[in-house]
Amino acid sequence: MSDEPHSTLSFDDTVHQRARLGILTILQETGTADFSYLKSTLQLTDGNLGRHIEVLANGGLVQVKKGYEGRRPRTWVTLTKAGRTALAVEMDALKALVARFDLSQDPKKSGTKTV
Amino acid sequence: MSDEPHSTLSFDDTVHQRARLGILTILQETGTADFSYLKSTLQLTDGNLGRHIEVLANGGLVQVKKGYEGRRPRTWVTLTKAGRTALAVEMDALKALVARFDLSQDPKKSGTKTV
Repeated sequence: MSDEPHSTLSFDDTVHQRARLGILTILQETGTADFSYLKSTLQLTDGNLGRHIEVLANGGLVQVKKGYEGRRPRTWVTLTKAGRTALAVEMDALKALVARFDLSQDPKKSGTKTV
Repeated sequence: MSDEPHSTLSFDDTVHQRARLGILTILQETGTADFSYLKSTLQLTDGNLGRHIEVLANGGLVQVKKGYEGRRPRTWVTLTKAGRTALAVEMDALKALVARFDLSQDPKKSGTKTV
């Protein structure tokens, strides 16, 4: 066991939650995505996706813009600079967690003990 | 963008939730841990830790044993085989997510486009 703070303590629930992590990682690649693209890629309902986007927008991690494409109403979601930073912090914490897991899987580098 | 299912779709909320991921990764190293050890390492309240352990126990991912050490009541939490498997599945999904994130950070390997 390491005496360092456990890496899950670095996770922010706003970012770590499954659907929101999905939204942020997609936006990290695309910059901006349409509501219906996020919905189909992440297999969420309208209501569910709407609530998660609201949480992210309230945290300043995404910006939402409503408009029309022709007559069709559309909603675009854009990653903010704060969102990009928050995702990078989460990814660093995930990498630390995965590295610790891999280390504990290697019997040469780890002793198992009951605490 | 990849056409593969998004890696966050592989996450199971029972395992992925921040505190529960912490509990499982600690138990993966220790096999069994005492309630108060988990509480201090993960900086949770009694009530909060108790609820997360209940969710994991209901999912068959941990077993709980109550007893005494001298006169002091203690609660031990042990990872089950199903818990070990579920954590390994989560770790594979996290690795895929981190790899995709790293790839998108490399401008030579990724194009940014709006969808």
